[in-house]
Amino acid sequence: MVLLSGGLDSAVMLYLAKKEGYKPFCLIFEYGQRHSKEIESAKRIARVANCPWQISKISLPWKGSALLDKSVRLAKAGLSHGKGVTLRFRPTGGLRQKNWLLPCGSKSKIPATYVPGRNIIFLSLALSCAETIGAEAIFIGAHSQDYSGYPDCRPEFYRAFDRVIATGTKSGVEKKKIKVRIPLIRKTKAGIIRIGNKLGVPFELTWSCYEGGAAPCQECDSCYFRAKGFKEAGLKDPLSMGDT
Amino acid sequence: MVLLSGGLDSAVMLYLAKKEGYKPFCLIFEYGQRHSKEIESAKRIARVANCPWQISKISLPWKGSALLDKSVRLAKAGLSHGKGVTLRFRPTGGLRQKNWLLPCGSKSKIPATYVPGRNIIFLSLALSCAETIGAEAIFIGAHSQDYSGYPDCRPEFYRAFDRVIATGTKSGVEKKKIKVRIPLIRKTKAGIIRIGNKLGVPFELTWSCYEGGAAPCQECDSCYFRAKGFKEAGLKDPLSMGDT
Repeated sequence: MVLLSGGLDSAVMLYLAKKEGYKPFCLIFEYGQRHSKEIESAKRIARVANCPWQISKISLPWKGSALLDKSVRLAKAGLSHGKGVTLRFRPTGGLRQKNWLLPCGSKSKIPATYVPGRNIIFLSLALSCAETIGAEAIFIGAHSQDYSGYPDCRPEFYRAFDRVIATGTKSGVEKKKIKVRIPLIRKTKAGIIRIGNKLGVPFELTWSCYEGGAAPCQECDSCYFRAKGFKEAGLKDPLSMGDT
Repeated sequence: MVLLSGGLDSAVMLYLAKKEGYKPFCLIFEYGQRHSKEIESAKRIARVANCPWQISKISLPWKGSALLDKSVRLAKAGLSHGKGVTLRFRPTGGLRQKNWLLPCGSKSKIPATYVPGRNIIFLSLALSCAETIGAEAIFIGAHSQDYSGYPDCRPEFYRAFDRVIATGTKSGVEKKKIKVRIPLIRKTKAGIIRIGNKLGVPFELTWSCYEGGAAPCQECDSCYFRAKGFKEAGLKDPLSMGDT
């Protein structure tokens, strides 16, 4: 079971899983992203990699993360840490109708694009599918750069989740535990790009930009790190028309 | 944050949380249940308890658990263990279109109503909401009877999930950990009913039956355990018209 986002990292991971001999099944989440470009990219990558895929729709009950809410201005490259973006959460019913606000990124250098529990929710759904189809492993493309900001991208979180699988599933109880694989966790963006280059990953199909324009904006964090990664890897990004 | 199902256990737990001094926020999941009766009950209970609520819709990517799929015949009381019910899972796209089958309950005495990762998914979504609104705790109504069958109702699973919160969330990293509370875990159904009776829980609003008829079917596992619980507690179930 491979969590495929449409970005560069998970595409490289998909090809890594294939190289290891797995027959990947791609799980693509539709959770109210700012644009559908990511999802379209993910489907195309799965098709080119010759793997079955499944779209899982989640209606998350809150808005306000820069990743989800179009009204929140995205931080420019390198500026997203420490911003006071808020998450709004409005109850369906009850007496005390109000919005709750979660200030993001204020104390702990967690980026404005942090979505509470995002990878926990993704892993839980992936686990459910993985157990249903009898998959042996779940591949998730967290890596050291995410790791510096998002709590749910750190190795200790994934090891804690392993214990949830061992104790909270039929497979775990029957000792046929499903492994959470994080093959990119210690890699840099440049390292991931180099691996992908060797494995023939179709980088031209991947989409990293937080915006959903015709071409990458080249201004958001994600575009910044992608460009930096290609530069450090000494490779050309087929998406950026040779301007690096 | 109280996970409210519309059943008896979570209603008692909601009143317990109120008694402890919490201001509960009710989270109600709509995940393709066989009928909407549960959800209607949950909303009514939240209203009567004077608490705000939120409905979270999840489109789970598989069908086939007896809890979700109308085509799967429900086991009669006491018979659901060891049945070979299967879960079907069909990919959206890709070359190898097929159904996967997960035989349920065969080896490990796990009931046909087992849904892979159900409570893990619920807790993940609850955690996400809890962190957003700054809740201190998540209440989930697992108890010893569930515990005998479902892996994700056992104390060791909840303790493993605590570690996920500590490592995978902003709150955890900032040492303002959200607690998972399982106040009913060691209680029997009769014990839960006795507590609810003292706290004035509106039992007439709760719905336990797996079927969505005008009155409880009195044949499914859930009806069986509810009736047994009321009998052992020496109380009358307002839903069963005095036939116990």
